[in-house]
Amino acid sequence: MIIVGEKINGSIPSMAKAIAEKNEARIKSLAKKQSKAGADYIDCCASVNEGEVETLGWMIDLIQEVTDTPICVDSPNPEAILAVLDRVKKPGMINSVSGEGNKMDVIFPAIADTKWNVVALLCDDSGIPKTAEDRIRVLDRIMAEAEKYGIRQNRIFIDPMVEMLCTAEEGVSMLMEVISYIKENYPKAHIICAVSNISFNLPYRKIVNQAFTVMAMNYGMDAAVMDPLNRDLRGVIYATDALLGEDYYCMEYIGAFREGIFGPTEDEKK
Amino acid sequence: MIIVGEKINGSIPSMAKAIAEKNEARIKSLAKKQSKAGADYIDCCASVNEGEVETLGWMIDLIQEVTDTPICVDSPNPEAILAVLDRVKKPGMINSVSGEGNKMDVIFPAIADTKWNVVALLCDDSGIPKTAEDRIRVLDRIMAEAEKYGIRQNRIFIDPMVEMLCTAEEGVSMLMEVISYIKENYPKAHIICAVSNISFNLPYRKIVNQAFTVMAMNYGMDAAVMDPLNRDLRGVIYATDALLGEDYYCMEYIGAFREGIFGPTEDEKK
Repeated sequence: MIIVGEKINGSIPSMAKAIAEKNEARIKSLAKKQSKAGADYIDCCASVNEGEVETLGWMIDLIQEVTDTPICVDSPNPEAILAVLDRVKKPGMINSVSGEGNKMDVIFPAIADTKWNVVALLCDDSGIPKTAEDRIRVLDRIMAEAEKYGIRQNRIFIDPMVEMLCTAEEGVSMLMEVISYIKENYPKAHIICAVSNISFNLPYRKIVNQAFTVMAMNYGMDAAVMDPLNRDLRGVIYATDALLGEDYYCMEYIGAFREGIFGPTEDEKK
Repeated sequence: MIIVGEKINGSIPSMAKAIAEKNEARIKSLAKKQSKAGADYIDCCASVNEGEVETLGWMIDLIQEVTDTPICVDSPNPEAILAVLDRVKKPGMINSVSGEGNKMDVIFPAIADTKWNVVALLCDDSGIPKTAEDRIRVLDRIMAEAEKYGIRQNRIFIDPMVEMLCTAEEGVSMLMEVISYIKENYPKAHIICAVSNISFNLPYRKIVNQAFTVMAMNYGMDAAVMDPLNRDLRGVIYATDALLGEDYYCMEYIGAFREGIFGPTEDEKK
């Protein structure tokens, strides 16, 4: 599982506060913690109304002061992303393109001849499509466009768009259909989900997030935007890898438990 | 999910002790607790070397003193099962037949014209088959035999035999193949698993059990031999039903949370 650590994101109220207060220690601490916990990328999203490029640049510098884990540069504004790209010491991930507006036209040529990866959201100017068919139409368009620029499938992290379960009459069947389609038609592309979106407005969200993660992995999800410090979710991911036959004799599962990535905390053991 | 409460089973050391000590209070208490937590059946297994019929009968009486939840009469000895059947006030479940020995010959004619359900284990005199093909061969034989006696599919709970993950090189792919076959070929039969078998010899078993449950439900498992007092596993089951589109607007999930079937305990809320 490729983990994008989600905690340095200005759309989270406590992080918005840290950004507004220029709380460098908080940002550095979360970068360090997520990296230590095993994040493969550290998401970095300012989510400010003004001065986004400046804020993003400041945040990127802070993260790079404490870790060399690659950064996932996250903004709805493709120009803001490009404006900070030089500041990032090594290619990471761009979050995101989609079928919306000029996103692909701005981002794809800029990263064509680089090693940057990119998240592709399956939505467009009409919003998030309601049917699998329409999401797949967006997908095919994005993949065809990426191919024009020579951006290979394995640099693309397709986000099928997880929405809240509580308003979905048919559960996640449509989403799993999209994931299955991606897996079959673009087998080298990654499939990334913001797993906690599934449980919005439900009680005891962690259980829904865990169940969703198992199911999505079963269909082909291999990357997640998540809290790498969420011990039970980490355990579920190791367990699911083992169930899927991707962990010979559960060695990874057992190793991760021994390292303390999941399982009772030191406090809980007392 | 049809839940068979697993706690009154003499193969569990603490229950073996309770049986040996004729601890009626312990058996009654576990019957009551499991029933109150929502068990659909209370498993009743003596697992004693001598006097099995007498012990089973005594246990059945105790359970029936405190609950009218149907009983799952559990013994490797089909004659012992038949010997206590009259003692049970209403038809429940027989655990089990399989391809072994004379089990079907003894059990099937006895329950043919009754409302008893029956668990069918996919093993035979050669043990637990290693391949999906061989388990399916046992399955087809059992189903053909049941049909001869007019025992309908919906009275049969097929147990595909969950084995420990830590020695399974290919994860659970073979088991899921068997479950898919059952679902496709005997769509009205139930599929039951002893879910905690999956995690033998692994640390932090609960996480593996949870992940397995989600995956098995995704393929068609609709019954489980489990601890109905396991709050997180209960929550996972409600969440998975919702993900599978079997819980309109998550009403069951939310209702079960409100009833306290899962979620933080009263102590944890303090």
